[in-house]
Order: sequence, then C-alpha cells, then structure tokens
Amino acid sequence: MTYTKEKPTAVLLITCPDRQGLVATVADFVYAHHANILHADEHTDPDSNLFLMRLEWDLDGFDIAFAQFAQHFAPIADRFGMCWRVAQSTHRPRVAILVSRLDHCLADLLYRHRIGELRCHIPLIISNHPDASRLAEFYNIPFYCTPIAPENKREAEAQQLKLLAEHDIQLVVLARYMQILSQDFIGRYPNQIINIHHSFLPAFIGAKPYHQSYNRGVKLVGATSHYVTEMLDEGPIIEQDIIRISHRDTREDLIQKGRDLERMVLSRAVRWHIENRILLYGSKTAIFS
Amino acid sequence: MTYTKEKPTAVLLITCPDRQGLVATVADFVYAHHANILHADEHTDPDSNLFLMRLEWDLDGFDIAFAQFAQHFAPIADRFGMCWRVAQSTHRPRVAILVSRLDHCLADLLYRHRIGELRCHIPLIISNHPDASRLAEFYNIPFYCTPIAPENKREAEAQQLKLLAEHDIQLVVLARYMQILSQDFIGRYPNQIINIHHSFLPAFIGAKPYHQSYNRGVKLVGATSHYVTEMLDEGPIIEQDIIRISHRDTREDLIQKGRDLERMVLSRAVRWHIENRILLYGSKTAIFS
Amino acid sequence: MTYTKEKPTAVLLITCPDRQGLVATVADFVYAHHANILHADEHTDPDSNLFLMRLEWDLDGFDIAFAQFAQHFAPIADRFGMCWRVAQSTHRPRVAILVSRLDHCLADLLYRHRIGELRCHIPLIISNHPDASRLAEFYNIPFYCTPIAPENKREAEAQQLKLLAEHDIQLVVLARYMQILSQDFIGRYPNQIINIHHSFLPAFIGAKPYHQSYNRGVKLVGATSHYVTEMLDEGPIIEQDIIRISHRDTREDLIQKGRDLERMVLSRAVRWHIENRILLYGSKTAIFS
Amino acid sequence: MTYTKEKPTAVLLITCPDRQGLVATVADFVYAHHANILHADEHTDPDSNLFLMRLEWDLDGFDIAFAQFAQHFAPIADRFGMCWRVAQSTHRPRVAILVSRLDHCLADLLYRHRIGELRCHIPLIISNHPDASRLAEFYNIPFYCTPIAPENKREAEAQQLKLLAEHDIQLVVLARYMQILSQDFIGRYPNQIINIHHSFLPAFIGAKPYHQSYNRGVKLVGATSHYVTEMLDEGPIIEQDIIRISHRDTREDLIQKGRDLERMVLSRAVRWHIENRILLYGSKTAIFS
Repeated sequence: MTYTKEKPTAVLLITCPDRQGLVATVADFVYAHHANILHADEHTDPDSNLFLMRLEWDLDGFDIAFAQFAQHFAPIADRFGMCWRVAQSTHRPRVAILVSRLDHCLADLLYRHRIGELRCHIPLIISNHPDASRLAEFYNIPFYCTPIAPENKREAEAQQLKLLAEHDIQLVVLARYMQILSQDFIGRYPNQIINIHHSFLPAFIGAKPYHQSYNRGVKLVGATSHYVTEMLDEGPIIEQDIIRISHRDTREDLIQKGRDLERMVLSRAVRWHIENRILLYGSKTAIFS
Repeated sequence: MTYTKEKPTAVLLITCPDRQGLVATVADFVYAHHANILHADEHTDPDSNLFLMRLEWDLDGFDIAFAQFAQHFAPIADRFGMCWRVAQSTHRPRVAILVSRLDHCLADLLYRHRIGELRCHIPLIISNHPDASRLAEFYNIPFYCTPIAPENKREAEAQQLKLLAEHDIQLVVLARYMQILSQDFIGRYPNQIINIHHSFLPAFIGAKPYHQSYNRGVKLVGATSHYVTEMLDEGPIIEQDIIRISHRDTREDLIQKGRDLERMVLSRAVRWHIENRILLYGSKTAIFS
Repeated sequence: MTYTKEKPTAVLLITCPDRQGLVATVADFVYAHHANILHADEHTDPDSNLFLMRLEWDLDGFDIAFAQFAQHFAPIADRFGMCWRVAQSTHRPRVAILVSRLDHCLADLLYRHRIGELRCHIPLIISNHPDASRLAEFYNIPFYCTPIAPENKREAEAQQLKLLAEHDIQLVVLARYMQILSQDFIGRYPNQIINIHHSFLPAFIGAKPYHQSYNRGVKLVGATSHYVTEMLDEGPIIEQDIIRISHRDTREDLIQKGRDLERMVLSRAVRWHIENRILLYGSKTAIFS
Repeated sequence: MTYTKEKPTAVLLITCPDRQGLVATVADFVYAHHANILHADEHTDPDSNLFLMRLEWDLDGFDIAFAQFAQHFAPIADRFGMCWRVAQSTHRPRVAILVSRLDHCLADLLYRHRIGELRCHIPLIISNHPDASRLAEFYNIPFYCTPIAPENKREAEAQQLKLLAEHDIQLVVLARYMQILSQDFIGRYPNQIINIHHSFLPAFIGAKPYHQSYNRGVKLVGATSHYVTEMLDEGPIIEQDIIRISHRDTREDLIQKGRDLERMVLSRAVRWHIENRILLYGSKTAIFS
C-alpha cells in the first residue's frame, strides 16, 4: 500500500463518463511509453455512470519527461472528457497544519512526518493560540500564532491566507482547529482542506460531539475526517472509525478514547491525500488503498 | 458471562439514589441468608448520583423461598428508596417476536433459541405478512398473521395486543417489524419492547437508513438495538455495532453487510434483557456483561 | 461489490510473471471485442514478481460466445505464460456442504443461499451424523449420512467422493466437519475445499481452540477460513476475524461468541470463492473485493 | 472509567479462595469506616474457585489514615486468606521506560503522560542506544544510555538495575526494548514488567512477527501487551488488538499499521496497571475497566 521506497513511480487519477475502451486506451498509452504498471484499480459508479481510475507505474524506463506528460496525455483526456491529475511519488506536497489548543492530532502528525509515514513538506504550523510553539520548535517547523477574537477574525484569516500563499501550500490540515473558516478561505482551497470531526458523522454534527454522545447514551464513539466545504461537517467523508464505550465511561473517558480515534482517522486521511489515493466524485470519496 | 448452567442462581437489579452503606447492606442481606455471591457489579452515575447494582448468587443454600423474597427485601428497599427486581436464572421469560417480510433477524433469533443461546419461551410470532409461517412451523412456534392496511391498523393492533395478553408476554421483539406501533401499544409494554434500527443511531433516523448511508458516502454502516419509547428511534440504546464499507459497495451490498450486523446487535440485546443484564437509568442503559 | 444483478457479466482472473504491457494487452483484448469493463483490479507482488489481475466486464455487446473464449484468449495467455480462468456471473457453481453435529455454519449458509446471498447450487449435504437432516429437508436439499468409525473411514470417504463426483461438485465447504480428510480426498479437490477453523490461525492450531484460548487467557478470540491442503490448518488463509472477550467469559461464552465469528468468516470465504474474487499465489490469497 | 479527578479515592484489590460472606465482610468494613463505595466489581473464577474483587471508594469521610489501613484490614485478610493491595488515586507510581531504537511507543507514552492520561512519575528512560535522548529532553525526563554488547550484557544490566533501584521504580515498561532480560532482572520485578509484542500472541512468538505474519498471509495483524515472566512471550496477557490488512500491504505496511496498534495496546496496559485495574490469577489477568 505504501509507495515502493526504492523506485520512483507515477500515479494517474482519472474520472470521466464511463465508456468502452477507457482502461485499454490508458493502459496502451503508458505501455507505449515503456512503463510497467504496478497497481491499477478501476471502478465504475453505477449511479452516475462515472469511471474512476487510479494507475501507478514504475518511472524507470518511462520515456516521457514528467513535465511533458500533460502534453502527451491531453489528446486522450480530451477525447474522453477526463478530469485527471498525475503525481510523482518523489514529489512532496506542501502541507500546512492549523491547530488550536488541543495538540494531540498535531503531535501525532508531526511524529508520523518525522519517521517518514507522511511523505510531504510541512513548511508551517498556524495556531490561534501560542501553546503549540514548543512542539513546533522540537520538530523544527516554523510556527505562526494568529490570535483570533470576534473583532479581528477577518484580519487574522487574511494573515493566515497570506502565510499559506507565501509558503505555496497545497493542503491545509485542520488538526482540531476550533475556528470556523470563512467561505472565502474554503473557496481558495477547494478539496484541499481536511478536517477531523470527533463523531461518527452525520451523528452529532456541531459543537461538543463527545458530550452529545455521552448524553445520548451511545455504545460507540466515532471520528470522521472529511474535506471541508461550505456546509459545516457535510463535506465528502474520507475516513471514519469507532471505539466501544460503556456506561462506566465518563465524558472525560470519551474524550480520552476519542483522541486515539482522531489521531488515526485524521492521519489516514492526510496520508491518503498525499499518496494520491483519494478520488472525489459528487459528495463522496473513493479510496484506492 | 452466561448463566452457570449447572446451578440455579438469582439476579437482583437495583437503582436508587447513592448513599453510604448500600453495597454493605445488600451484601449483608444475601449473606445472612446463606447465599454465595457469584457476580457483583456496582456503578455510581456521577451526573444523577444514582447507584446501579447487579448481584447474582447461587441459590443453593439460600434460605428464602423465591416467592417470599420481596417480603424479606422490602425493608431494605424502602429504606433506600430502591427500584429493584429479582429473577431466577431458571425462569424463562415469555417473548413474542413481531416481524414483517425480511426474516433474517427472525431466523437468527429462532436458531439461537433452538440451540439454547436465548433462555426464554417464544410462545408466538406475529407478522403483518404470511411469509414467515413456514419458518415458524419449522421451529414449532405458533404463527399469527395480522395483515395491516391503513384502514384497519387500529383493529390489527388490538388483535395483536390481545394475542400478547393471552400469551402473557413479557418482552416484545421487533425483528425488522416495519410498522410504527401506536402510543397505546408502547405504553402497555414500557421498557419491554426491543427494536433493531439499521443504522448507527442517532445518524440516519427514519426510513431507509442504508440508502441514506449510501447517499452520504459514509465509510461504516451500523445497527442499533434499543428500547421502544414514544419517540421514534430515540429510546434507550442497548447495543450498537458497525461494519466497514467502501466506494465499491452498492446499496445492495450495504443491505447485505447490514444483515449480519442487525442479527448480532438485536440478538445481544434480547439475550442481555433475558439474562437481566440491562439496567435503565434516565434515557440510557447500563449493561452488566 | 456484489455482481450487478440486472446484467450478466464475465470475470477473468489472471496470474503470471509480471511484464510490461499486461494490463494494456488484456484491456485491449476485451475492448476489441466490444466489452465494457466494470471493475479492473491489478496487483503486482513484489516478492515473487507475480502479476495478479481480476477483470469484470458487461457481457452485453461482447462479441465472443462464452464457449469460444478460451480459443480467442489462448494466444495472449500463451504469450505471457498466464494461469487464468474465466467465469460468467450467471453461472452457479455446484457446492457441497460437509458437516458434523454442530450445525450453526450449515444453518447460516443455507439461509444465505435461500435469500440469494450465495449464488450457487447446493445439490447435497453430507454428514457423518444424522442430526442435520431436518434442516436439509427444510431447505429442500438432499441429505446423505455417511457415518464414520475408525474401521470404516476409508469406505465412508469413498462413498462421499462418489457422491461428490455424481453431483459434479466444484466446491466442498467444511462447515464444522470434524473429520480429517485423507490426502487422497484433498488431492482430488485442489483449492476447492474451504474449511473454517475456530481460532485466529496460526494461533491455536489443532483440537479445541476455544479451550486453548481460554487457558491461555487471550483477550480476543478469532476464526479463520482457509483452503484445505495436505498440511492441517496450514492452507492459504481466505478470511479472519476476531471478537473481544474478557475474564468474565467462560469456555461456553467463547464457544457462543465464536459461533457468530465462524458463520461470518466462513460465509465470506464461500461467497468470495463463488464470485471469483479469490486469487491464490504461493501459500496466500489475494481477495478482490 | 477514569479516576474521578476531583476527589481522592482508594482502590482495594483482592484475590482469595471463594467463600460465602466475602463481599459482605469487605463492604461492611469500608462502610463501618464511613466510606462511600464508587465502584465495586467482583468475579468468581469457576475453574480455580478464586474470588477476585476490585473496590473503589471516596476517601472523603473515610476514618482510617491510609498508613494504618493494613493494620485495620489485617484481621479480615487473615480470616479469608486474602492476597490484597490497596492504593490511593493520588499516589503516582514510579515508572521507568526501557527502549531501543524504535521510539513510537516511547513517544506515545511520554505524550500521554504529559497530557495527564498516565497518572504516574517517569523518573527515567533507559536505552541501549542514544537515539531517544532528544525526545527525553523535550519531555524533561532524565535519559540513561547503557549500550549493550554480547561481552558486556551482564554489566549493562547491573547498571540498569542499579538505576531502577536508585529511582525506586515500581513498574518497568519495555517500549520496544529489543534485548532479552535475564532471569535475575525479571525475578526482581515480578509482575512489574510490561512488554509489548507485535503480534497476536500466541501466534508469531519470537523474532520479526510482522515478517512472519506477512509470510503466512494472515488477514489481520495484532499486538499484545503482557507481563514479563521467565518464559519469553508467555507471560499473562493484559491487552490485545488487531488491524485488518490485505494482499496489497507490504511488510513495511504491516510495520506501519502495527505501530498504531502497539501504541494503543501498550498504553492501555500501562494505564490499567497504574490505575490498579489489573488482577493476576494463575497465568491470566482480570481487567476491571
């Protein structure tokens, strides 16, 4: 499931209306250019008649320079009306992490990054509180504190957007960032913002889901990672998981058990995004694992 | 966790306001009457300051005849303001199963009953369709068909209630029974009706939860067994479980995977109820497993 | 994940040494014959350099009659040294179930078969005990009792093999069949016998795994479905799952909880086999779900 | 499940031969001394006829000074032949962590300790490699490097034992410590050494369990935390968990997925030990959660 470490590969992700000959045409294309396919995974969504494909091939021997790929692939993409993107496994996307006071997801992502689980650059961490600065320093990542109060929210966000732009950020991870982003912010990073919500969505939308869970008396608590869209907690779900609780668990126990969930569910989403394993279609995701 | 098969036991379930001396008083009582405690499980709910206890003891040597228990225990119960009930492991409660067309939960419950997993009597099965009659016959359980149409709903329910009364039913299991019970019906069997809802409540309340799950693009589907109250799908939750799905799963796949969940989640709830492992407090359940 | 019910499809399963052009060649072939690919899933095993592929296409418009497929595909298969097989979704393989006294897996398989979850024929059930005859009768499946004693084991097996041959059986399911098959029996159905072992293999190989689990004090019990080979409990694993237990669970509780596991783990293996989702390579399986 | 943070409590753990009157006698004792019981959990092991109990009470109002508890409780303990111990929730046991090169469990334990999940002191970290020193420094915990080579193993261990003794260590956690402890070391900390083994024991005992798992083709990988005894990987199991894998997962993927398991399974064991939730009986553990 991981990128083969030894050899550089390319990943091609495609969605388009389903038609005969799609797999053949794409496979022919990479074969004609002397690539060896390592993984091919194709799915047709019966509701939308949409074709979804992820193809990964060994770049060793592939005779198109990466910069020229689009030019060569364009005729096929045009013919079938494809949405597509291609990425090299050696490319490290630039990821910013936004966090508030609770730092368990941040600490987890930074640890995974350090040991090589997350193959990206993290040029900066932004927080509306100063608490995480020591952790950022430990991992040698620049830390920016943009305090947010009702009266300066717009300015704080402008400052954040400026930082993201300056660092050429391609993915924004909300690692328990407790501020609601403006429509403008979200609009600038379409399908490039991943959030962790600490419930099994769509149950317990909104504030304090562990308290809601406790009060409802559920027997499992969950966590959900999803892309952020204009509708709060309603973006496409990337990953979910749950843990069992009992009547003996207090609200604090739910919060504690949930931390483990949140860490895993968020880190999987970030990794899959980075490894180009996620295809969006409509309001859903296909995960090619 | 199962009743010890070899020896008859008694189970005492208690809820009352928490106070010093509760465990001591109850334990002294059973000890004074020469009982050996097999399991004791006690919990204090911090929110409501409620004391919850389940006590199971060996009836061998116990010097109170079961019929006289209430009389002997009354002074203690009165002193502490206890809600309590006592049951013998040899007692088999009388359980009715209501079912519509889909019979996977019914078939599962009947099988478990046959091999001794559910220690109850099942004097009758009631359905608004004739489909399950052959299955009922195989297991030698009387089957009553009470067809329901908008214009006869009240009469059909009256007929059902009559059947339940005649058979002295103590627990009603809705094993994918697709009719909404009237407030009157529910009021006659308070905390004695168990339903299976095919979602992780409170997500996907109402009709066609698998279709709702499919449309929302969740990564897990769930099932919930709960006591039926006046509020649809909002009664105290007894048990929940989930199974992982992916973008490859169609609506039919969700329904199929969900069947396994529903069977397990409903059968656990029924077993725990029968084995006197469930204590209701407020809108929640404590499960003494 | 299920076969699309409305339209007949074909499934092609391939293993061969990995080489450039495999996906392209196969996809070209089906495209040239006017098929629309519904699912394509390809994997390369890095250890053995083996190419594994499952391809499913809509038969509507496909211009090769199924009986002529081999003849058309042979040149490709020969060129790449492929092991391959093709199947039609409308084809129902012929499955025999062998069972001893415990009938929970049998009852489960028959129920799933009845409601359409297992798309196969079950022409017969064979048991070394008469107990399951009533269940077989309920589902209208011929039941053969071949009692086995140490002195007649060889004859009993000969009788079983005769029955399997007469009914043209393509898959033998050991649904808690408590006799060890002879090497001869196994040799006649290579990779066509599926067994359920009631532990998380390779833990607790051999007899009474729940008792072994209980004695070891594990916190989870498992079940494993696998193809039967000459080495007891060492065949390729198809599916495994687990359930949590605690110190409160007796041996009987483990057996009871395990039954649910066994049912699910065996039925998944049988379904995946029937739906041509399993590819064997070395001593392992790839499951194309 | 957590200690109530606001109020100091006491926990009493008891094992003894089962007899009538045990719960009553113990509950009477704490009641006579004006304690309010918060949690009582009692279990009788049917095989060994052993009585197991965990009792937690509010220290507010309890009229025995903690230092005098033993003296007051001794007559009861003697009468019933009890093994027992008592602990205050405000007491923080002294825990040493031993680690080799892989630091994911160490980093996880230190993080949990920092945010208050593990209510203990960690006076030192010992490693046979210098790698973890920076992490130790970040968390302000003294770090001792005791390099181990075949020729100095005895001396290195003597040095470690000296450090543990000097720091008055009550629990030793092997957080992926890759050296086998001597019998002498183990004998000095009976039931006070917790190890994490990266498989579902008893499957894949010994070296490189993920490689063993990969080669066997299992569909789940597991992790096991256990007390260390003289028999390698055979001590009483405290906790186990598993994660699903597929044919697509490489050995490296197993290692990566396993890290998450190891962290959770080890940290639960350490927390339960610290919170006095574990009772050993024979070669098993009861977990009072």
